[in-house]
Amino acid sequence: MSEPIFDTHQLAHVEILTPKPNETLWFFRDLLGMEVTTQQGQSVYLRAYEDWYHHTLKITEAKEPGLGHVSWRASSPQALERRVKAIEASGLGKGWMDGDLGHGAAYQFTTPDGHPMEILWEVEYFQPAEDQKSPLLNRPQKRPLRGVPVRRLDHVNLLTSDVTVNKNFMMEQLGFRLREHIVLNNGIEAGCWLSVSPLVHEVALMRDGKGARGRLHHVCYWYGYPQNLNDLADVFREQGIYIEAGPGKHGISQAMFMYVYEPGGNRVELFGDPGYLIFDPAWKPITWTEETLAAGIVWFGGNLPGEFFLYGTPVVHEHEPAMAAG
Amino acid sequence: MSEPIFDTHQLAHVEILTPKPNETLWFFRDLLGMEVTTQQGQSVYLRAYEDWYHHTLKITEAKEPGLGHVSWRASSPQALERRVKAIEASGLGKGWMDGDLGHGAAYQFTTPDGHPMEILWEVEYFQPAEDQKSPLLNRPQKRPLRGVPVRRLDHVNLLTSDVTVNKNFMMEQLGFRLREHIVLNNGIEAGCWLSVSPLVHEVALMRDGKGARGRLHHVCYWYGYPQNLNDLADVFREQGIYIEAGPGKHGISQAMFMYVYEPGGNRVELFGDPGYLIFDPAWKPITWTEETLAAGIVWFGGNLPGEFFLYGTPVVHEHEPAMAAG
Amino acid sequence: MSEPIFDTHQLAHVEILTPKPNETLWFFRDLLGMEVTTQQGQSVYLRAYEDWYHHTLKITEAKEPGLGHVSWRASSPQALERRVKAIEASGLGKGWMDGDLGHGAAYQFTTPDGHPMEILWEVEYFQPAEDQKSPLLNRPQKRPLRGVPVRRLDHVNLLTSDVTVNKNFMMEQLGFRLREHIVLNNGIEAGCWLSVSPLVHEVALMRDGKGARGRLHHVCYWYGYPQNLNDLADVFREQGIYIEAGPGKHGISQAMFMYVYEPGGNRVELFGDPGYLIFDPAWKPITWTEETLAAGIVWFGGNLPGEFFLYGTPVVHEHEPAMAAG
Amino acid sequence: MSEPIFDTHQLAHVEILTPKPNETLWFFRDLLGMEVTTQQGQSVYLRAYEDWYHHTLKITEAKEPGLGHVSWRASSPQALERRVKAIEASGLGKGWMDGDLGHGAAYQFTTPDGHPMEILWEVEYFQPAEDQKSPLLNRPQKRPLRGVPVRRLDHVNLLTSDVTVNKNFMMEQLGFRLREHIVLNNGIEAGCWLSVSPLVHEVALMRDGKGARGRLHHVCYWYGYPQNLNDLADVFREQGIYIEAGPGKHGISQAMFMYVYEPGGNRVELFGDPGYLIFDPAWKPITWTEETLAAGIVWFGGNLPGEFFLYGTPVVHEHEPAMAAG
Repeated sequence: MSEPIFDTHQLAHVEILTPKPNETLWFFRDLLGMEVTTQQGQSVYLRAYEDWYHHTLKITEAKEPGLGHVSWRASSPQALERRVKAIEASGLGKGWMDGDLGHGAAYQFTTPDGHPMEILWEVEYFQPAEDQKSPLLNRPQKRPLRGVPVRRLDHVNLLTSDVTVNKNFMMEQLGFRLREHIVLNNGIEAGCWLSVSPLVHEVALMRDGKGARGRLHHVCYWYGYPQNLNDLADVFREQGIYIEAGPGKHGISQAMFMYVYEPGGNRVELFGDPGYLIFDPAWKPITWTEETLAAGIVWFGGNLPGEFFLYGTPVVHEHEPAMAAG
Repeated sequence: MSEPIFDTHQLAHVEILTPKPNETLWFFRDLLGMEVTTQQGQSVYLRAYEDWYHHTLKITEAKEPGLGHVSWRASSPQALERRVKAIEASGLGKGWMDGDLGHGAAYQFTTPDGHPMEILWEVEYFQPAEDQKSPLLNRPQKRPLRGVPVRRLDHVNLLTSDVTVNKNFMMEQLGFRLREHIVLNNGIEAGCWLSVSPLVHEVALMRDGKGARGRLHHVCYWYGYPQNLNDLADVFREQGIYIEAGPGKHGISQAMFMYVYEPGGNRVELFGDPGYLIFDPAWKPITWTEETLAAGIVWFGGNLPGEFFLYGTPVVHEHEPAMAAG
Repeated sequence: MSEPIFDTHQLAHVEILTPKPNETLWFFRDLLGMEVTTQQGQSVYLRAYEDWYHHTLKITEAKEPGLGHVSWRASSPQALERRVKAIEASGLGKGWMDGDLGHGAAYQFTTPDGHPMEILWEVEYFQPAEDQKSPLLNRPQKRPLRGVPVRRLDHVNLLTSDVTVNKNFMMEQLGFRLREHIVLNNGIEAGCWLSVSPLVHEVALMRDGKGARGRLHHVCYWYGYPQNLNDLADVFREQGIYIEAGPGKHGISQAMFMYVYEPGGNRVELFGDPGYLIFDPAWKPITWTEETLAAGIVWFGGNLPGEFFLYGTPVVHEHEPAMAAG
Repeated sequence: MSEPIFDTHQLAHVEILTPKPNETLWFFRDLLGMEVTTQQGQSVYLRAYEDWYHHTLKITEAKEPGLGHVSWRASSPQALERRVKAIEASGLGKGWMDGDLGHGAAYQFTTPDGHPMEILWEVEYFQPAEDQKSPLLNRPQKRPLRGVPVRRLDHVNLLTSDVTVNKNFMMEQLGFRLREHIVLNNGIEAGCWLSVSPLVHEVALMRDGKGARGRLHHVCYWYGYPQNLNDLADVFREQGIYIEAGPGKHGISQAMFMYVYEPGGNRVELFGDPGYLIFDPAWKPITWTEETLAAGIVWFGGNLPGEFFLYGTPVVHEHEPAMAAG
């Protein structure tokens, strides 16, 4: 038995694209209570109040909504080197970039489907102003008094033209472990949930119902308390934010969820509880089939509409060739 | 920079000793809703309904309450070998035992303070009866209809005569990472919280206010929802269980806590939320000092009484030499 | 301006009919944690653990599920007399009955639609056994250790062939106040929520989509904590109870709801929060129209299926004359 | 048996005095998310977002913190007349005043202890601006995006030199019903909880440990969800607000509580759940004695410090004659 790879350590940040940067910023800053670190060029950098780094979200103006890139942090400089070698060997590496606001050199690559990603080691930590410091020393700053403040980045969910191919890449090149997946009666994997930690996933891959490549399904931030989702649903209903589904409870991951579209068009998920955590080092992946799947999608509290399996960003219009930004 | 050790993977189970086995069993089975796997000799083996292995708690009849042993699971067979070598080199190894109900061969050792521990790879999984199976496939069995059912084992807290010495052992021989600690003005470490996962701790070490060695402070099970702690507090108040403190919220770990004494005399903690999780691979430990400590002990919702820092099991009586069971 | 009538004071108890008495009893006793006071003849009398009287639910074996009767308690003996006179004058009075287990003489009547009701003053209080007494003196007994124990009876919802006619009867003869209602574009009232207390309703009347008379839509018990609904939803999913909708939040009443069918076929609602309370003595009823109604039915967290507006007990089968048990 | 009096219907508003009007306003507006209706002279008028009237809180600048007045709304104009007659007969009436911002003519009086009160019928309703209107029609305005927004005024707690005398006045002249009280072994009433609705109290009277007259113990606003108290405790800890006790759960009223001092010095309570509601028209008051009292004061989650029974506003300094503002 070969040993597990512990080289990829966490989801560092996500960049999303938006055609409505002001409205998207309003959503994350005023409703989710996130903090702006910097604004530069066509981008704004934000973090939730329990995120330790310079940013976990980069919002960049673009013609279409969608994924900018996903950034992973390695477990150590040595681990980073090993992963870069593995990615290079796969042929999907794009090379090193010097860094961005908030982090140092990063190795860029794509998934087989074309989702832009990077892996890095050097990060810049958020430095609170004196009056932002909390007496709770393990919290990077005081809880904001704005909106229903979200706590931290949780995961990203990507639509793919082929779940298995992309899953294999994430597992083999990056060391992700398969936690749960959906296998249809015809043997095709319709979705998978992968993680490098006890979380059920830092990344999920779902079959793109439109047949497109490289699209974003959603980015997820985390509260940890179901009531916060209810408070936020109240706010969303009154502020005109479209709630696609929830609050409810997933079977897969056992997390309390709510799905909404931010004004730029990207789907955002909010997590309202810790779900379950996986500590077993020999975890046997959970396989959901067509017979058992309903309980996996929604355990209780609301159904996912059909669009959940079709809508992603960029939006694929009818009669257009299915090709995404990735 | 040397790479982190990822060899110890999780807290597998804890054995506690009790002079009142029937009452202790009633507490865990009827109030916490835990499930009995097996009863054999002077021991009962139990698990919470989301624990995957044969047991996470072994209750053994004894003259005095206290710690039986703590069991860690390695990340892989190879990782187990490496840890055994490191422990042997420390001189604290006791050697291999063949196994117990629920697991295979385990390597036994003690902390410098004398707390009995073991590390192992081979575990037996819980096998639900047909009518115990849940349609929620990532749950090992249905939620019990008894008491306020707790979900899984979380951590163990040990009293030690010297926090630093025991901490160093856990970090160097087992690969634990320091997450938070208390450093008094005289430089002495009064407590530390160590983990091998994003949890803030699978084990905490606190200075024994009685100066004893090898005692148990508490074992902790996990709910994940603050309301469940309130429901359980209701039950405890009516069933005559002594609540030492809480429900309230710790600063250290940010967890919602409640401390009670099970009828055999051991302190048990119940966790009502996920606290915060640590994903940063270069985490800088949080240091609490005498000036900042109050917020760390209790962030809100109830104070810890003086006995919290003195009471452990076995109980150290006045005028007796301070020597524990470990 | 005439003064409000304060003569009807509370919903005292509800009787439901079931073709599966054992399974219905299992649902209320083992899953909702209710307590059996007495079993006599074809009936079982139960109460939630915070109900003060002998019973709030009478389950009676019958060929079809449905409503047995609804019992109201007056504010005083004098108030009872006044209400009996008013009901008699309406022509819907049936006369006095001597009493039942748990209460004294009651005046029986029906709504215009035929729902059996009674109003009474004399009730028997639950007497806890010595070991059932709680140190919480304002609680009639200890919290049960069975299921997810529900706290008290909340309200009843009746299907009617004509909402306005039945509403007028409840308001004029019994003194109910109109809190919220739905008025369709054609002027027809599709539903109304009536109360004699700050609760938004002790009784709701909804238009029977099948055109039947005297049917039961649901009886509702109360938790007060949203998490308890989530805990219970977990139990229902695993114990094979059909969840029709929720947990979610109503706009009307602002209550967190979950609708299920007990094994005998009657719909049962569980309330997970206090919603909003009405203290204004000059309350202007809230009118929902076809344009605004969606937010009133479900504010967030799950949609009500079409059957919600059609299914009631007894079940009306196709090609049968629409006539209910009432 | 005489019939109960249903003439006093609700707590309409409370006026508090503060020597630090800006800081007090910051507390209620920015931390509790309350809305300012008007600012006039030395007073600011506020309401919680689910309060229907012009205001429920009037903050008036003064040299010392304390109670301005308590305002009750009658059930009808006729009920108001009856109560005014009864108060006049008691000799504690002060006469009619023309009205204030937000309400019409009010009859002023004091308790025997000297707490200023008024009773009225005519109130002005809050009129939301177009963009403040919520699609939730039974909510007077959208949920604010500021602080942890509180929902409505709940009750007021007054310190008195003689609980029984003041209780009798509230019951006989105003029609309050006794729900719970504390009777010491020497027969003295140490506290009582009185209401005109299913709430356990709109007013509590507690024995002033300083022997003063007419002081304010606290005013209480209501959330209804325990998690909101936890969110708010987080905010208070970071914003430098002194938390005297809680979040915890009272036995008396069964409410989740938190006590803090607003910057002007007045104690404010926040309620985090509905507690229990009283629907029995023949309610037998709960009597707590010295033997049973501890469970009544705090059921779980934190102890009340000694100052809880001594501190009120205005503050009574040592060596000063005990005389309050009332």
